[in-house]
Amino acid sequence: MNKKFNYRLVFRMIGSLILVESVVLLLVSLVPLIYGENDAGYFLISSGISTLLAALFLLIGRNPSPTIGKREGSVIVTFTWIVFSLIGLLPFWMSGSIPSFTNAYFETISGFTTTGASILNNIEELSHGMLFWRSMTHWIGGLGIIVISLAILPVFSVSGTQLFAAESSGPTKDKIHPKISETAKRLFLIYVILTTAETILLRLGGMNWFDSVCHSFATIATGGFSTKQSSIAYWDSPYIQYIFILFMILSGINFSLYYFGFKNKLKKIKENEELRYFLIILFIFAFIVSLSLIDFSKIQSFQTLESAWRDALFTVTSLMTTTGFSTADYMLWKPLTWVILLMVMLTGASAGSTSGGIKMIRIVISAKACYYEFRRLIHPNAVIPVRYNHYLVQTDVLTRVLAFVVLYLVVAGFGIMVLAMSGMGFIESIGGTITCLGGVGPGFGGVGPAGNYSEIPEFSKWFLSLMMLAGRLELYTVFLLFTPAFWKK
Amino acid sequence: MNKKFNYRLVFRMIGSLILVESVVLLLVSLVPLIYGENDAGYFLISSGISTLLAALFLLIGRNPSPTIGKREGSVIVTFTWIVFSLIGLLPFWMSGSIPSFTNAYFETISGFTTTGASILNNIEELSHGMLFWRSMTHWIGGLGIIVISLAILPVFSVSGTQLFAAESSGPTKDKIHPKISETAKRLFLIYVILTTAETILLRLGGMNWFDSVCHSFATIATGGFSTKQSSIAYWDSPYIQYIFILFMILSGINFSLYYFGFKNKLKKIKENEELRYFLIILFIFAFIVSLSLIDFSKIQSFQTLESAWRDALFTVTSLMTTTGFSTADYMLWKPLTWVILLMVMLTGASAGSTSGGIKMIRIVISAKACYYEFRRLIHPNAVIPVRYNHYLVQTDVLTRVLAFVVLYLVVAGFGIMVLAMSGMGFIESIGGTITCLGGVGPGFGGVGPAGNYSEIPEFSKWFLSLMMLAGRLELYTVFLLFTPAFWKK
Repeated sequence: MNKKFNYRLVFRMIGSLILVESVVLLLVSLVPLIYGENDAGYFLISSGISTLLAALFLLIGRNPSPTIGKREGSVIVTFTWIVFSLIGLLPFWMSGSIPSFTNAYFETISGFTTTGASILNNIEELSHGMLFWRSMTHWIGGLGIIVISLAILPVFSVSGTQLFAAESSGPTKDKIHPKISETAKRLFLIYVILTTAETILLRLGGMNWFDSVCHSFATIATGGFSTKQSSIAYWDSPYIQYIFILFMILSGINFSLYYFGFKNKLKKIKENEELRYFLIILFIFAFIVSLSLIDFSKIQSFQTLESAWRDALFTVTSLMTTTGFSTADYMLWKPLTWVILLMVMLTGASAGSTSGGIKMIRIVISAKACYYEFRRLIHPNAVIPVRYNHYLVQTDVLTRVLAFVVLYLVVAGFGIMVLAMSGMGFIESIGGTITCLGGVGPGFGGVGPAGNYSEIPEFSKWFLSLMMLAGRLELYTVFLLFTPAFWKK
Repeated sequence: MNKKFNYRLVFRMIGSLILVESVVLLLVSLVPLIYGENDAGYFLISSGISTLLAALFLLIGRNPSPTIGKREGSVIVTFTWIVFSLIGLLPFWMSGSIPSFTNAYFETISGFTTTGASILNNIEELSHGMLFWRSMTHWIGGLGIIVISLAILPVFSVSGTQLFAAESSGPTKDKIHPKISETAKRLFLIYVILTTAETILLRLGGMNWFDSVCHSFATIATGGFSTKQSSIAYWDSPYIQYIFILFMILSGINFSLYYFGFKNKLKKIKENEELRYFLIILFIFAFIVSLSLIDFSKIQSFQTLESAWRDALFTVTSLMTTTGFSTADYMLWKPLTWVILLMVMLTGASAGSTSGGIKMIRIVISAKACYYEFRRLIHPNAVIPVRYNHYLVQTDVLTRVLAFVVLYLVVAGFGIMVLAMSGMGFIESIGGTITCLGGVGPGFGGVGPAGNYSEIPEFSKWFLSLMMLAGRLELYTVFLLFTPAFWKK
C-alpha cells in the first residue's frame, strides 16, 4: 500500500487492452463491406486512432515494475471501461449516426457496461456496421466482466495481492483454475458456445443471421440493445421469444457452474443456492405478473393465457437478468407489476454472470441474516451460524454483504435525488437510476420500454453514465478512486 | 423459552393497562361538559366497556406466576396497542363521528402508533371531545414508546431476561435508573414538561387553549393529528410555526439526553453522534429544499425567502421527526423535494424518542459500516473498528443493525407491492407504505398532505394499520409472533 503508484503498469495494461479494441474495430469494418455500405472508413479511422492511443499508452508504460496493488487494479478496471467507451463512440459520432458527443458516449458506455439504455429514437436508421458495433460493445463488456470476476479476482484475492478485491463477484468462490489465462480461455469458450448456440436457434426461428448474431451478443452479455426500435416485440413468434427467455436465464447463471457442468460436477450445480433462489423468485414473480395481466371477468382462450404468461415471463426474466429486451410496454400494466419489476431490477441475477444489480447471492445471504436475527432473538444463547451452499458465512463476510446491500440502496437513493434535481420527473428519476445502476436499460415513465433516454437533460446523461459504470464495477472499484485514503501513501 | 406460555400474566398486564385507558376516557368525558357538547356519554360508555374488559382480563389473569419471557413480552406489547385501539375507536364509532368501523380503527391505531395518517375529510366537523381524544391517543402512544424503550428495555436486556428485546430502542444504551418505575416517573415528568412548555408557548402565539393542548399532544408524540383540516397552515404565523419546528426537533431527540441534561452531564449530549447527525441532515436537507422553492430568476424579497425557508424547514422537520404536520402541500413542489422527503421519512429521528422510521442511530452506524468497508479494502490487514459515541460497536451489533436496515427496506418493498396489488396507484403505494411504516402520516399523491386515507380500499386500510403497528414496534416484536419457532416449546 505504501509503495509508489505504479502508473507505468497501469498505462501498459490499459494500452494492451486498447489494442484489443483496435483489432475488433478493424474486424467490424468488414461488416459494411459485406452489406455494401459505405461507412467502413469510420471503423478504420477509429481503429487507427485506437492503435495510436494504445501505442502512446504502451510507450508511457514501458519497462514497468511488475508489482500491482489494489490502487492500480481499481484504476485499470475503471479507466479501461471509460477509455473503451471514449474510443468506441468514435464510429457513431464521426459518421453522424449519433451526432451529439454526450449521446454517443452515453450509448457506448451503456453498451460496454451491458446496460442497454439507449438514446436512439429510430434504431433501424443505423447502418449494419453501426448496429453490429453497438451490439459488439455489449459482448466485449460482458466478456470483460466474466473474466474479471471469475478468472482474475479469485486468483488474486487468494494469493493475498487482492487485485480488484473491491469488485469481488461474490462472497464465496469456487476457483475454476489457478492460472488466470487458463481460466480466461475456458470462460471465453463457454461464452462463445452460448453465443453460437443462441445465434443458431434464433436463425432456425426465422430471424436473419445479422439480427441473430447481434441479439445473441446482447443476450449473453445481458445487455439489451436490439436492432429494432420495438425490441423483441418486432418478432411476434413464441418460439423466438422463448429462446430469448431461455438464453437470458442461462446468461444470468454464474458461469463457473457451466464449467462444473462440463466437468460433470453436477452436485455443485444442484446445491447452488443462488441458482435455486434465482429461478424460484423469477418464476414466482412471473406468475404473479401474468395473473395481473389476465382479465378474469372474461373466459380466456389458451392463446391469451399463453401470451400473458409469455409477456410476464419475458419481462421479469429480461429485467431480473438486467438484460432489458422488451416484448410489451409494462408502463401500460398495473402498478403492482411496476413494483415487482423494480424489485427484480434491484436484485439482479447471479454473481459471476454478466448480469448487474445487487446479485442474488447477496440477497440470499442478507435474507438469511435477517432470518437468523429472528432466531437469535428467540434463542439468545444458541450459536446459530448463517450458512450458504453448506459453507459457514464468516461474520466479516456477513457484514460486508449487508453493508454492500445498504450502500447499493443508498447510492440508488442518492442517484434518484440527483436525477430529480437535474429536472427529471419522479418516476423517471426512480426508474432511470435503478435501471442504469443495475445495468438493465429501460426504466419507468418517459424512459420506459416505449421511450428512450434522448430527451433527458445533458447532465442526467453524464450522471447516469457514471451510475452505469459504478453499478457494473460493483460500486467499490469506482468509489475507491474518490477516497482520499486510497491515495494516501 | 421452554416454559409454558404464561398467559395469565399477559392477561393481567394488558388488563392493568386497559384500566389506564378507562381512566383517561373517563377524564376525557369532562371535555364535552366544558364545551357544552352532548357527547360525554360516548366517553362514559367507552370507559365502562373498557373497565369491564379490564376486569375480565384481570380475572383471567389472576394469580399469575411471576416469570416473564420474550414471548410474553412481545404479546403484551403488540396486543396492548391493538386492544387500546379497539377500545379507543368506540367514541368515534358509537357517536357516528367516524361511522365506518374500519375507518375508526385506522384512525385510532394511527393515533396510538403516533402516525397521524387520517381518514377524516372534514376534521372541523368533530366535537371538542372527539378531537381531544384523538390527540390524546397520540400522547398516550408516545408515552408508551418512551417508557418501553428507555425504562423497560434497558433493564431487562441487561438482567438477561430480555423482555421486549426485540424492540430495543437502539444498539447502545445508557441507563437512566436501574428501577423501571423510577425511570418511568422521570420520563413521564420530562414528557409532561415538554408538553406544557409547548402548550404555553403556542397559547402565547395566539392559539386558543384547546388547540394549544391538542397540538402539543401531537407534537411531543410526533403524531401529527391536527384539529384543523389544513393542519398548521391554518395558523399563518411565523412565530407559531417556528414553535412547532422547535418542539418537533425536541421530540425527535433521545429522551435520555434530557435526563442527562438535568443531571448536568452536558458532555453526553455534546458527544451524542445521533443528535449531531440528526441536526446536520435536517438542516442540510431543509436548505436544499428551500433552494428548490425559490425562483431565482426574480429578485426575492426577504419575506418570500423567509417563507420558503420556513416551509422547507417545517416540512423536513415534520417528516424527519415522523410527525406529519404540514404548512404546505409538497406534492406541488419539485420532484427533487419528494425524493428528499421520502429519504427523511425512511431515516426518522433518534431512537429513544417518540419518532419512528429506521432511526438515525442505525443510519449512522450503517454509514460507518459502509465507510469502514472502504477502509478495509484499502488496508486489508489493519483492524479498523466501527465506533459510535466513542464506544466500539461489536460485530454482532453491527450485523444486527445492518440486518434491521435491510429488513426495514424489504418490508417497505413488500408493503408497496401489497398496496399496489390492492389497487392503489404507484406513487400512493410508495408514499402510503413508507409513511405508515415510519409513523409519519401524509404520503404522496392522493394520500399526500392535501389528501387523506378515506378513499383507499378497505383492505389497504387494514394492511396499513398493520404496517403502522409493525413500524412502531420496530418490526421484530410484531413479526416474531408470526414465527413458528417462537411458539415451539
